[in-house]
Amino acid sequence: MTDAFSFTLHKTDGMARRGDFVTPHGRVQTPAFMPVGTAGTVKGLTPEVVRDTGAEIVLGNTYHLMLRPGPERVAALGGLHTFMNWPLPILTDSGGFQVMSLSSLRKLTEQAVTFRSHLDGTMFELSPERAIEIQALLGADISMQLDECLKLPAKRDEMQRAMQLSLRWAERSRRAFESRAREGYALFGIVQGGDDIPLRQESARELIDIGFEGYAVGGLAVGEPQDVMLKVVEETTPALPADRPRYLMGVGTPSDLLEAVARGIDMFDCVMPTRNGRHGMAFTRFGQINLSNARHAHDPRPLDEESPHPAARTYSRAYLHHLVKANEILGAVLLSTINIAYYQALMAGMRAAIEAGRFADFRTDTLAGWSQGDIAAV
Amino acid sequence: MTDAFSFTLHKTDGMARRGDFVTPHGRVQTPAFMPVGTAGTVKGLTPEVVRDTGAEIVLGNTYHLMLRPGPERVAALGGLHTFMNWPLPILTDSGGFQVMSLSSLRKLTEQAVTFRSHLDGTMFELSPERAIEIQALLGADISMQLDECLKLPAKRDEMQRAMQLSLRWAERSRRAFESRAREGYALFGIVQGGDDIPLRQESARELIDIGFEGYAVGGLAVGEPQDVMLKVVEETTPALPADRPRYLMGVGTPSDLLEAVARGIDMFDCVMPTRNGRHGMAFTRFGQINLSNARHAHDPRPLDEESPHPAARTYSRAYLHHLVKANEILGAVLLSTINIAYYQALMAGMRAAIEAGRFADFRTDTLAGWSQGDIAAV
Repeated sequence: MTDAFSFTLHKTDGMARRGDFVTPHGRVQTPAFMPVGTAGTVKGLTPEVVRDTGAEIVLGNTYHLMLRPGPERVAALGGLHTFMNWPLPILTDSGGFQVMSLSSLRKLTEQAVTFRSHLDGTMFELSPERAIEIQALLGADISMQLDECLKLPAKRDEMQRAMQLSLRWAERSRRAFESRAREGYALFGIVQGGDDIPLRQESARELIDIGFEGYAVGGLAVGEPQDVMLKVVEETTPALPADRPRYLMGVGTPSDLLEAVARGIDMFDCVMPTRNGRHGMAFTRFGQINLSNARHAHDPRPLDEESPHPAARTYSRAYLHHLVKANEILGAVLLSTINIAYYQALMAGMRAAIEAGRFADFRTDTLAGWSQGDIAAV
Repeated sequence: MTDAFSFTLHKTDGMARRGDFVTPHGRVQTPAFMPVGTAGTVKGLTPEVVRDTGAEIVLGNTYHLMLRPGPERVAALGGLHTFMNWPLPILTDSGGFQVMSLSSLRKLTEQAVTFRSHLDGTMFELSPERAIEIQALLGADISMQLDECLKLPAKRDEMQRAMQLSLRWAERSRRAFESRAREGYALFGIVQGGDDIPLRQESARELIDIGFEGYAVGGLAVGEPQDVMLKVVEETTPALPADRPRYLMGVGTPSDLLEAVARGIDMFDCVMPTRNGRHGMAFTRFGQINLSNARHAHDPRPLDEESPHPAARTYSRAYLHHLVKANEILGAVLLSTINIAYYQALMAGMRAAIEAGRFADFRTDTLAGWSQGDIAAV
């Protein structure tokens, strides 16, 4: 336990940063990748398996938990850490992104967003204050402000309107968070502004004026090409304070992670390692490997005999191919495990490289390795 | 490694038996329950998880592996132990039961059964010799003879015909098995005869004349009431040699296991702990618990705080209920784990009770415990 949320920056290498932050449930080394525990579970994996991949923090989705089983019930059951048996740090999103992408009949006002549950049609209201309340009920170590997230491309006046609404919601979120005074817990603000750099920089300045324990770059990975995303990242991170963690939300491929760390990002979350794992795809040092491909049917080699994770060293490609073709649950379980472990190994590699001042070499070597897979790991 | 398959009977208590057998991949304590690894995987579970439940042997299905990925491919990949990363003993069935229950366009002759794969319509032929060959290719520690398995009730002349065909196939299976001479590996004969006791006893006598390392009671758990099944078991086991293991195929509920051990059975396999686990059902000391039931939604208690398995002690009923309602893979994974662990704990309890000469008390106490669950654990 510590009194306050704290971030320590140990080393920089170019714009890449090596640090850690301390939460009530423990320390997280950065750059960090957070597996996504959508509905109170990283899909298919026990918490022990998730920990053994090297993950030090997971993400929980406010939207999903709000609908089912409900934050009041999770709180009555001891909070999300106890509920899902994950004793390490948890970051929760605010629900805004899923309201936009999953629910129907949304109505957005200055006050709140109302929407219909995609599960059973029940109407819900989510305001900045309720999003903070829900995340407090869940017991999140790090909460996120409610924001409005647009799909890209979007018109500039739309991006500006959404960014400014998100700023007003940031201020209300901060006030609601302060009123609860949970020592050591953190609230992150979210930079918006679409792909418009001046809007992004304005958003960053205004958020810093309000003051947060960390800053996220939101509204990316929503359909734009990688170069657009990276351009926004590299023009935004210099506007953020060096002594606070920076979180690129919902990103991404291994390549996205490597390039975003090179541009000063410290934290990531993405469903890709688990979702692709459920669809027969493996992330490896050699790029993405599609295990449903018939050429793996006779291949006795493991995915990566030098992997730090036993599952990637042990099971043959032929066996994984068999599990995928037979639609066996274990295929989803093993590939989700292997993929999260690869993401964690990639982050550990980046952390070590930054410490050693050789991040540029690590990036070159890693990119070269990926070119050996089934498809370009862009 | 040992030179020959060997079974040791340590203790009896009434008709209940405490023993062990030794295979090329290790020792198995009896009475034993074998989790079913249908298609080269105990559904949803890594081999480490299966071992941690206490399982010392798993079953593989010849029918499923014959269709996909094919026994020649499994052999080329090092055999089933290597393929599925399970270093302990494996028993394989002969495929006969699944041919009858899953495939279409079966044609049964004296020579063999031909059938159409339920996966892709390919025609296959399975003879007693091919069944032995497949199981040798898989590398099974214990192989089963090909037999003909009828659904019950059936007419006496049908049961007699199938039993006699199974005996002729037993003899051919034995010859095919001997011609391969795999030191320490075992072949079990299968007693048939439906619910007709004289047919069963004739079948047992003839099989003993052929000579096997162990004897199975087949053709049960195919629709008959429990009392019919137990009657056949108790009239059959006395006809089997005391110095060989006795295996009741495809059985059953915890109650079936308890009652069959009381009647001299040493080995079991069943998909019930995994299949029911995938459908939200938990097996516990308190009987079966249906976790989809709304009354568990707020219940912070674990399934069994005194369980030897951490999953049964750790996760709340409310969390398991949530996973089941949200159709999360982890629900299937945790309940399959918990159920196999309960089956293993039940077997361990029976073994300890037989050793201590208090099997009757154990049976009474166990039956009393089950009456506390959601539904009678019959």
